[in-house]
Amino acid sequence: MSLAADSKRGPMVGVFDSGFGGLTVLRALLSRIPTANYVYLGDTARLPYGAKSQATIARYAVESARFLEDRGCEYLVIACNTATALALEDIRQAVSVPVLGVIEPGAHAAKRILPEPDGDVLVLATAATVQSHAYREACAAVGLRATEVACPLLVPLVEEGWTDHRVTREVLRIYLSEALAKCAPQAVLLGCTHYPLIAVAIEETLRELGSAAVVIDSAEATAEAASVALGSNHPSGEQETSTIFQCFATDSVEKFQRLGSLFLRQPIEHVHHLDLGG
Amino acid sequence: MSLAADSKRGPMVGVFDSGFGGLTVLRALLSRIPTANYVYLGDTARLPYGAKSQATIARYAVESARFLEDRGCEYLVIACNTATALALEDIRQAVSVPVLGVIEPGAHAAKRILPEPDGDVLVLATAATVQSHAYREACAAVGLRATEVACPLLVPLVEEGWTDHRVTREVLRIYLSEALAKCAPQAVLLGCTHYPLIAVAIEETLRELGSAAVVIDSAEATAEAASVALGSNHPSGEQETSTIFQCFATDSVEKFQRLGSLFLRQPIEHVHHLDLGG
Repeated sequence: MSLAADSKRGPMVGVFDSGFGGLTVLRALLSRIPTANYVYLGDTARLPYGAKSQATIARYAVESARFLEDRGCEYLVIACNTATALALEDIRQAVSVPVLGVIEPGAHAAKRILPEPDGDVLVLATAATVQSHAYREACAAVGLRATEVACPLLVPLVEEGWTDHRVTREVLRIYLSEALAKCAPQAVLLGCTHYPLIAVAIEETLRELGSAAVVIDSAEATAEAASVALGSNHPSGEQETSTIFQCFATDSVEKFQRLGSLFLRQPIEHVHHLDLGG
Repeated sequence: MSLAADSKRGPMVGVFDSGFGGLTVLRALLSRIPTANYVYLGDTARLPYGAKSQATIARYAVESARFLEDRGCEYLVIACNTATALALEDIRQAVSVPVLGVIEPGAHAAKRILPEPDGDVLVLATAATVQSHAYREACAAVGLRATEVACPLLVPLVEEGWTDHRVTREVLRIYLSEALAKCAPQAVLLGCTHYPLIAVAIEETLRELGSAAVVIDSAEATAEAASVALGSNHPSGEQETSTIFQCFATDSVEKFQRLGSLFLRQPIEHVHHLDLGG
């Protein structure tokens, strides 16, 4: 891991999330665009965004995006579904570099793999993302019907480390049976960056409940969209993964190193502390 | 509900929490000291404090305490276990009015009702409160041995509204059996202001697991300590409850009205929005 941008390498890409979940997007980016330099910012002092108001989320996200632009990032990835749903336009107006969110790529990925062109999509997300109806709009724009379901307990269950636990399975059974009573999806979009860590449990619970829906990870879809935008269409998993990234966190750097390494699936050697809105 | 302090009434009391849980303490105060005026501040834009670092929690709590002092509060109640555990001294140094936390009153209440003078206490709390060992120290100061257990899923379960739900019972069974394997408590201290909403489930799960421990609500204990300090020893439930309070929230006022009314068990007609650290 280098702390300075390498000018011989690709562009400097800023990745922002309220916490650790966005590291699943960074992981996909490191693999998809290994030549870029990355700056990751987790606004851990103010997480979670999922239950906060639009005005508060927009204020926090804009501060973070400006920090990344000031650090020299030429391209921003908002690796947070809530911030994308509620603040993408505010962020785009606040900075002068291109900004990619996680929602549109997820909808496009669903469109590509759905067996029927006008199929049904089930979106699992936080309360704030669901209330924004950002996924419903993004799916409608590509001709898909989306049913959005809030799953507030999944983030705390992942953060408790109960990714393969009977309580998590029981909670998934409750959320997914309620959802399947409302729609018959062909695809299930993971509309929160924590959910890839329980993707297997989600898939198995769907099968148990009689659904054959394909599970789509927005993190992978977003990394693919970024690679197209940056002209670096590097097929996932073909070459070695990059390790050139810097991490900033607004709360404890020790906790970020510990929890963050689980989401990134590689050690995070150094984290810089950052004060925002102080 | 009046928006201005009534000078003919008792003192102006400021009550602070990161969110809604502290309203269980305000509820106990309204009943215990009905002649006082109250200002409640929920720092909802930055909740929850439970998983954040000491430095961040202290900064947020001090800002909130200063706001309450500036509003004319003559006595502050830190109705948040995490802020009491990690920032009580910082708050006391930052303001010039007396400050009461929720932890010491809880330990004193346990001491009074325990059948044996040197009995064992089990403390259920958030990760940050447990890591601070503030309850262990407060209990040791009155000659009690405390075992502190972190229960990170209980706050999200209460906020999901699953206060009497099989998943909550199952999670309690897991947390409490692990705890009872470590100690044989005579009292269980609810070291988080959300937990009174599941006090019945906690008590029933203890009985199911063969424990006869008494469940102690720190909110009630804190209101009693405040009434002694303010010379208003009004026995709980004897007269009508006061309704003279103002509420401030740093995030959505609508959400505060809706969720807050559940914790306060009475309607909250008006909430003022407040920007802190912006």
